[in-house]
Amino acid sequence: MDLNKISSPSFLKELNTKQLQDLSEDVRKFLIQKLSVTGGHIGPNLGVVELTIALHRAFNSPQDKFIWDVGHQAYVHKILTGRADQFDTLRQYKGLCGFPKRIESEHDVWETGHSSTSLSAAMGMAAARDIKGDKNFVVPIIGDGALTGGMALEALNHIGHEKTNMIVILNDNEMSIAPNVGALHNVLGRLRTANNYNKAKDELEQLLKKIPAVGGKLASTAERVKDSLKYLLVSGVFFEELGFTYLGPIDGHNFETLEETLQNAKRMQGPVLIHVITKKGKGYLPAENDTVGTWHGTGPYKMETGDLVKPKTTAPGWSSLIAETVRKLARVDERIVAITPAMPVGSKLEGFASEFPNRMFDVGIAEQHAATMAAGMAADGTKPFLAIYSTFLQRAYDQVLHDICRQNLNVFIGIDRAGLVGADGETHQGVFDIAFLRHMPNIVIMMPKDENEGQHMVKTAIDYNEGPIALRYPRGNGLGVPMDTELKALPIGSWEVLREGKDATILTFGTTIPMAQEAAEVLADQGIQVEIVNARFIKPMDEAMLHRLMQSKKPILTIEEGVLQGGFGSAVLEFANDNHYSTIQIDRIGIPDMFIEHGSVDMLLQEINLTAEETVLRIQELVNKDNKEQAGLKA
Amino acid sequence: MDLNKISSPSFLKELNTKQLQDLSEDVRKFLIQKLSVTGGHIGPNLGVVELTIALHRAFNSPQDKFIWDVGHQAYVHKILTGRADQFDTLRQYKGLCGFPKRIESEHDVWETGHSSTSLSAAMGMAAARDIKGDKNFVVPIIGDGALTGGMALEALNHIGHEKTNMIVILNDNEMSIAPNVGALHNVLGRLRTANNYNKAKDELEQLLKKIPAVGGKLASTAERVKDSLKYLLVSGVFFEELGFTYLGPIDGHNFETLEETLQNAKRMQGPVLIHVITKKGKGYLPAENDTVGTWHGTGPYKMETGDLVKPKTTAPGWSSLIAETVRKLARVDERIVAITPAMPVGSKLEGFASEFPNRMFDVGIAEQHAATMAAGMAADGTKPFLAIYSTFLQRAYDQVLHDICRQNLNVFIGIDRAGLVGADGETHQGVFDIAFLRHMPNIVIMMPKDENEGQHMVKTAIDYNEGPIALRYPRGNGLGVPMDTELKALPIGSWEVLREGKDATILTFGTTIPMAQEAAEVLADQGIQVEIVNARFIKPMDEAMLHRLMQSKKPILTIEEGVLQGGFGSAVLEFANDNHYSTIQIDRIGIPDMFIEHGSVDMLLQEINLTAEETVLRIQELVNKDNKEQAGLKA
Repeated sequence: MDLNKISSPSFLKELNTKQLQDLSEDVRKFLIQKLSVTGGHIGPNLGVVELTIALHRAFNSPQDKFIWDVGHQAYVHKILTGRADQFDTLRQYKGLCGFPKRIESEHDVWETGHSSTSLSAAMGMAAARDIKGDKNFVVPIIGDGALTGGMALEALNHIGHEKTNMIVILNDNEMSIAPNVGALHNVLGRLRTANNYNKAKDELEQLLKKIPAVGGKLASTAERVKDSLKYLLVSGVFFEELGFTYLGPIDGHNFETLEETLQNAKRMQGPVLIHVITKKGKGYLPAENDTVGTWHGTGPYKMETGDLVKPKTTAPGWSSLIAETVRKLARVDERIVAITPAMPVGSKLEGFASEFPNRMFDVGIAEQHAATMAAGMAADGTKPFLAIYSTFLQRAYDQVLHDICRQNLNVFIGIDRAGLVGADGETHQGVFDIAFLRHMPNIVIMMPKDENEGQHMVKTAIDYNEGPIALRYPRGNGLGVPMDTELKALPIGSWEVLREGKDATILTFGTTIPMAQEAAEVLADQGIQVEIVNARFIKPMDEAMLHRLMQSKKPILTIEEGVLQGGFGSAVLEFANDNHYSTIQIDRIGIPDMFIEHGSVDMLLQEINLTAEETVLRIQELVNKDNKEQAGLKA
Repeated sequence: MDLNKISSPSFLKELNTKQLQDLSEDVRKFLIQKLSVTGGHIGPNLGVVELTIALHRAFNSPQDKFIWDVGHQAYVHKILTGRADQFDTLRQYKGLCGFPKRIESEHDVWETGHSSTSLSAAMGMAAARDIKGDKNFVVPIIGDGALTGGMALEALNHIGHEKTNMIVILNDNEMSIAPNVGALHNVLGRLRTANNYNKAKDELEQLLKKIPAVGGKLASTAERVKDSLKYLLVSGVFFEELGFTYLGPIDGHNFETLEETLQNAKRMQGPVLIHVITKKGKGYLPAENDTVGTWHGTGPYKMETGDLVKPKTTAPGWSSLIAETVRKLARVDERIVAITPAMPVGSKLEGFASEFPNRMFDVGIAEQHAATMAAGMAADGTKPFLAIYSTFLQRAYDQVLHDICRQNLNVFIGIDRAGLVGADGETHQGVFDIAFLRHMPNIVIMMPKDENEGQHMVKTAIDYNEGPIALRYPRGNGLGVPMDTELKALPIGSWEVLREGKDATILTFGTTIPMAQEAAEVLADQGIQVEIVNARFIKPMDEAMLHRLMQSKKPILTIEEGVLQGGFGSAVLEFANDNHYSTIQIDRIGIPDMFIEHGSVDMLLQEINLTAEETVLRIQELVNKDNKEQAGLKA
């Protein structure tokens, strides 16, 4: 059928199984074709085609509320709720969001991006429903990986306690972003292989009937044995113990099973968990055969072959450069260990893991545990490299503050994807970390201007043994600069002048340095000479250089790809204020006080005026104002 | 024995059971007497006297590592490691810390304050031990309440997966801070009542032997039944499922049982969990009979009667005032619900809970879930009051940012214990929340000057339906001001002038306003007239007033009981800078870039120069500088 013609999911209720299967085929073809052009989370969405159709058939969205955990698996939901015609713009500037988005549709009742929030949201919506006396269903859909996140476990615990009516769909896709970690996953793994549980259960029940009844006490004990069969054989023990009715495991690609189970669940009281087994990437062989997670989310690819369209750069990727430098140093420094919360591939730690399997810890989607475990390791004399995306480090704010910084432990935090990340959009932009780390005592924060400085900063972090040190690096690739063969540690808190100039100074670091350099060239043509300082240490700042700069009275422009509120520019203002440089002209460019949506990083930078053009304008203003003031003082 | 003579726990290994019991008596008497003077966490410590003695007898600290979760139950540990003589200074300025503290003793290998970190720390230390090839034991001690914290569950999951050697002591004291919440607690509850499990188990095993063996398949099924007995009867199923060997439940006040179980655990491979039942407050009747948590932590009390020494104020406590005002409004506004992460007593929500039991949610120690559940409730049309201590809100940083602020949901966050909290010390100071909330888009942040304004701010928050709004209020009591009978909402972002003055302006809010007023009186006597502005909205600020103030060119001093880095003063600097008020003199007083230890709030304020005296000095400097500059310009 023509998916573009779908305006509401209500048509699904009229379809028979064959028609549902045909629709699934159409949806798969659509996804494989559209995403080959735009890129996107192909694997997760191919895995939930039948499940999503079955859900929209069994329930009445938006009265019934679907809450997609993480949210990158909601493409089929978007197609079924009238958004197929927008898939050409998927994840692009002003285009269809890659995650649920409330302004897009009334069917998107909850927005996500970060993992493990769905059960808490569902508990909130179910509680609100019950208070209001409404009767709708609340249906969170959560993956087996997301279930290891602490807040999901907190929510399971609370929901089981309250016995709140909801139907949790556990989408067990056998492989979340990386091979799953954790004992909880083992439980799920045992379920998967319990193919004969029905047969085994029957046999045992027959056996138990033969046990002679010998008095009240024993009878009740026998009843408990019977009860235990449920635990043992269906093995939903974990969820049953927490107060859920456990249904499954069922085949997530079989419409009849899905329909029957969902209808059963709708008749039950209290929280129900349906354990659905799905196959990530189903229906597209390159994605089906993926074992490492390449097809979790991709850029554009050649549909026929599954060949990914490679980016044209030859410069090393940032994640790879940092992880491989850590690996190199780990060969000579036995203290070094690596910790990742479920991102060994994204953080490019596969090489480290294969060379040092005993020194590598993938803790699952568990940022809080990852950070405090790193603190524990540092407290006992190792040097942990905690690789974590900027946006996910938000989950470990308290652990970084209370456990790492407060105890001043030697943890090396690698903040990956720092700055704007582009297509993943507002839930994933790495723009808050400077503002939320800068007020933590004891921490050092740095960001390199290029990959060569990046490798030296890894050395700096490893050599630094006076407390926590964080190294920010952006998504994407380096600049392609020549690489030094010998690594050297930088003096903590040292900045460097990249370009001399008598009229104004730009203080910036990392990805915005090329922008500053471009602006400086334009300004030079206008006769304005701009000094550019690589403010590579965001904390502590180079106070000697700041004194020199401020004493020179040249106006200063700070540029950062991070929030302005409490960010780096704010730190420069604080320094000027604390040291009574009150007459110096300072201006700041950065991320304004708003969430930045999806789109290419270049488009986003344009939108928020974080550009070379804006830099030129701001410098012109500063210099003109400064000239006027000088003139005024002389007059 | 004279506890002051203990210098190391090694003497314990020589004692017999009678001597250990005598020692327990001495420790209890010591604690009851000392804490009656200083106050402290009496209940938790009386509960772990035997357990702590048994642990120090079975293990060799500090080679073997005790990790106390939360840490307020480490007094006995402190006594046994040579610190009895410091208990007169407990929780006082420069005195003995109420929590483990590494600089105090080599036996304090990990510092805490916040809940649920011990298992992650233990995993880190055990992993470091194994990499280094060391052989020491790692022994986290965690309460049943702390176990519901998401990061503890993340850690359990990871430890079970890695099968790391460690001995977890689950200190199940039947009542954590508030009656425990959650399904996990129900599991523990069932264990407690399984007194006959050994007998029942024996009976069942006999029965099962009589089941005829009927072939290979069935035999293995029968074996699984046998295995299931362990699940069913000992009911350590939750922990066993996660990969732990589960021992217990055992009596935490019986030295022989403790010794035997600990020695068993030391011989086992992989992670072991010992479920120890203790009685909070044991040995002191007022604390033993406590059902609501009064004796969890107290101020001084009359030892003989258990009468608490009441503070002399008649002004309402802040928590009570805010919670009761919410309750009052909830009578007419059915949207209002309340959520607390395990602090119904501390947040004074008992009244709300008893009047609106269906609209009150105590989610356990689960700040992340609490915040996102609040978001879910707001998304479905209710108005949640999320009552949370400032220091614990740190745990929900990402949930406030990603779920509440990003979706711009109508959650009313009551930030209790904002500012310095005193005796609990550096893990509990509420000094970061302004800096970590201020850069979140969409949020309103406010703090009242007194309890009358406080009640109006509750009304303001309830009436505000354009996004999240946070109301900060301090630990302790109000000022005793007259209370309006009618509540009125304040205009969002409005400040008020409390005192006129032509020479300088102080911008401040909340607890530091009296300090500013005191300073203004002193300055008035010197002929310096200071304007005082109640900057009660920290975000958004009163921009009209800021423009007026800055156009007047009077120097400005900001005062805040929060970190200076990225705090309120920093926001004022940003405003001045963004609006090109570059020549105005601004100075800031607040919390410097360090962690503030325990002690009375007054002593701490002195230490960091957050005082009326400092205010006077800073204003004098500003005014003098301003005069000089005026003179310079005129010359």
